[in-house]
Amino acid sequence: MASNLKKWSAEFLGTFWLTFGGCGSAVLAAAFPNVGIGLLGVSLAFGLTVLTGAYALGPVSGGHFNPAVSVGLAVGGRMKASELPGYIIAQVFGAIVAAWILYLIATGKADANITDLATNGYGEHSPGKYSLTAALLTEVVLTAVFLIVILGATARRAAAGFGGLAIGLCLTLIHLISIPVTNTSVNPARSTGPALFGPHIALEQLWLFWAAPIAGAILGAVIYKLLLADEE
Amino acid sequence: MASNLKKWSAEFLGTFWLTFGGCGSAVLAAAFPNVGIGLLGVSLAFGLTVLTGAYALGPVSGGHFNPAVSVGLAVGGRMKASELPGYIIAQVFGAIVAAWILYLIATGKADANITDLATNGYGEHSPGKYSLTAALLTEVVLTAVFLIVILGATARRAAAGFGGLAIGLCLTLIHLISIPVTNTSVNPARSTGPALFGPHIALEQLWLFWAAPIAGAILGAVIYKLLLADEE
Amino acid sequence: MASNLKKWSAEFLGTFWLTFGGCGSAVLAAAFPNVGIGLLGVSLAFGLTVLTGAYALGPVSGGHFNPAVSVGLAVGGRMKASELPGYIIAQVFGAIVAAWILYLIATGKADANITDLATNGYGEHSPGKYSLTAALLTEVVLTAVFLIVILGATARRAAAGFGGLAIGLCLTLIHLISIPVTNTSVNPARSTGPALFGPHIALEQLWLFWAAPIAGAILGAVIYKLLLADEE
Amino acid sequence: MASNLKKWSAEFLGTFWLTFGGCGSAVLAAAFPNVGIGLLGVSLAFGLTVLTGAYALGPVSGGHFNPAVSVGLAVGGRMKASELPGYIIAQVFGAIVAAWILYLIATGKADANITDLATNGYGEHSPGKYSLTAALLTEVVLTAVFLIVILGATARRAAAGFGGLAIGLCLTLIHLISIPVTNTSVNPARSTGPALFGPHIALEQLWLFWAAPIAGAILGAVIYKLLLADEE
Repeated sequence: MASNLKKWSAEFLGTFWLTFGGCGSAVLAAAFPNVGIGLLGVSLAFGLTVLTGAYALGPVSGGHFNPAVSVGLAVGGRMKASELPGYIIAQVFGAIVAAWILYLIATGKADANITDLATNGYGEHSPGKYSLTAALLTEVVLTAVFLIVILGATARRAAAGFGGLAIGLCLTLIHLISIPVTNTSVNPARSTGPALFGPHIALEQLWLFWAAPIAGAILGAVIYKLLLADEE
Repeated sequence: MASNLKKWSAEFLGTFWLTFGGCGSAVLAAAFPNVGIGLLGVSLAFGLTVLTGAYALGPVSGGHFNPAVSVGLAVGGRMKASELPGYIIAQVFGAIVAAWILYLIATGKADANITDLATNGYGEHSPGKYSLTAALLTEVVLTAVFLIVILGATARRAAAGFGGLAIGLCLTLIHLISIPVTNTSVNPARSTGPALFGPHIALEQLWLFWAAPIAGAILGAVIYKLLLADEE
Repeated sequence: MASNLKKWSAEFLGTFWLTFGGCGSAVLAAAFPNVGIGLLGVSLAFGLTVLTGAYALGPVSGGHFNPAVSVGLAVGGRMKASELPGYIIAQVFGAIVAAWILYLIATGKADANITDLATNGYGEHSPGKYSLTAALLTEVVLTAVFLIVILGATARRAAAGFGGLAIGLCLTLIHLISIPVTNTSVNPARSTGPALFGPHIALEQLWLFWAAPIAGAILGAVIYKLLLADEE
Repeated sequence: MASNLKKWSAEFLGTFWLTFGGCGSAVLAAAFPNVGIGLLGVSLAFGLTVLTGAYALGPVSGGHFNPAVSVGLAVGGRMKASELPGYIIAQVFGAIVAAWILYLIATGKADANITDLATNGYGEHSPGKYSLTAALLTEVVLTAVFLIVILGATARRAAAGFGGLAIGLCLTLIHLISIPVTNTSVNPARSTGPALFGPHIALEQLWLFWAAPIAGAILGAVIYKLLLADEE
């Protein structure tokens, strides 16, 4: 049983990595002239932060790196609700430090003009100008399925060891679908870090990227328990 | 032994995910200006819906998410034919709900002009204008190999746990080859959901995307049994 | 112990799949307007043919799908030399049938103008106009490393089950490097099938894509045995 | 227990493969007209060199292929410091031979004009013109996380067999983030080989790509030991 300090360290580092790697690839490499990695590369980067973090840090903390995931796992009976505050604080802190270091790097060139570290948004701040309703629906549905995948792929009956692969690549898939809609959150911590260094509108809209992923995560956990779980 | 309700729920959810994720990536992100994910990203998305669904839901229902796969597995002796109706109804229903939610999201922007949710087609409705014969041949061959991969990678002699990886990435590969020909079906449910919200020609041509995948799946299962299977 | 007919069937099907899937993605999808999969998509497709074939058919025949690999494995002591003729005939036959079906599909559209089914070449027939020497060096080096990866990843001391993943993705990597040089062979069967339906120059240059991969495979097997193998 | 000669051979071959495959994909295929693999393809190639090398050669030498990784593993208590000189010499030698063979291939065409084999740099030699400070910060942070992933994914409590997957794809992720900043090193050997065949500025700046990755690796190993490791 890992100590709390170890768990919080793992969640801090994993969420740091998710935010630094995912948003970093978007800010630094997505639109690089001629050979940029595009939304496909950014989707892969986000997923690989979780895949690598899950295999490296999962044995310590479970590898959530996401407040919505922690809430969903508590609802699904996989972690104690009393552990939520520590986990969520560590996650948000990790995301903020990641955004800060990314800001230092991104502005470290002569003509740097960084106004946005891959923040999430809807309406005029959505990459494809999708409405609040479309953004809400997208984030709820995708986080709900994300939790079903997490709960199913780490259940006792699931193939041992493959959870990190399935869960990481699920996050890649989620980004392949939804970057144009909300720039893809499904993770309140990942939304919060960059918003602190971004345009004012990102902070104004931040509430949605706490509310929708957490609502979706609870929905997914409830669906899983009612319809799919073994009597354990 | 999972109950029927659990199995149908898993097939409903998995086919929902396949259709929502695969067609969603195509509709929302494939042609996003400058950084769109292209046919490579859509191919990856379709494969990852199955990979993630297989690890999360496979232990419940087997993780077919595709009427042609269910028919092929029944021919191959891996499921009871009496279970086919329940599976197929759940799959088609999941795909229809997925197309409906995708329609809501895709039309949730000011200048939305969605006339096609990644439907399948041949002739004038083929992305590359391939003929009915080319489309038929492509769908039969690819579904046949898909079934051989599924039956082989989940056989008792196969490496345990790797089935979901091989089968999911096989669907990615199938899309890498054939999106230009038919927009890639190999799955009657995935074809049916979007066709209900698409142009009239998609419904007119839907018969092919039931007939060819199912014929291919039976062909693949027969080849497997005759030439490759162990005496089990 | 699988019968010879089973082994030959598996090698026929696997090499069919490698050639149909890899060359098919190149011919049909690589340069599709605006959203084509490019050389990255083709590289992924080739690798995934082997990854999927290895998990599905590997338990039957070993999953070579490539005369150079079979020769290298015989040199490395992993198969009997007496089995080589049967394997190689099945592989070449599979690749020819694949090229023929691909030809039927690729020409199945009104304005089809297919003169080349992704054949291999050097000099004026190299995609990037690389010389015979550069092509020879590339094919020898890459096939040598391919064999080292195959022998190492399937050794008794290697992680069980991961061989198909490592070997399939090794073929993806090989293509990521060398499509511009020779269109990437490392596989005489894959070169032979399309050459029969291609421009005359592909047949004239076919000797190199038998000689260089086989030489490279022998070199890799010898390096492995001398420097890396356990005393088994 | 593998002999020293076997270990050095494995490290030589693995670092040869990393440098030849990663830099080769960048030089030969990244900017190929219309269908080039871009930075996403190069990122995948670098990661797959390590993934394939880890499964094939890891059982022999541990599969470092990188002097910074070897130093970090020594700090983390996973290898004896007395083995460092042999490992590092083999790694640097492998990278130099790789750059030499890549140079022979890349110049093997009529209009070849190769002045740079994917060397690393900062300031005016950074792909995106990032400053020395940004480059230093990037290389230190990314190598530190790389070591945390390596140490965590190969710890006794980690899922057996998945280390090579997680570590290889971690290198892909690192490249997805940082090619625009430094062309991505995190590996002094990979930086040294190409620099010997590159423009003079690459040699002048080479010190940073020894100092920063090694500093980052030590930092990562210390963080891991203090905050994450089991009492073993």
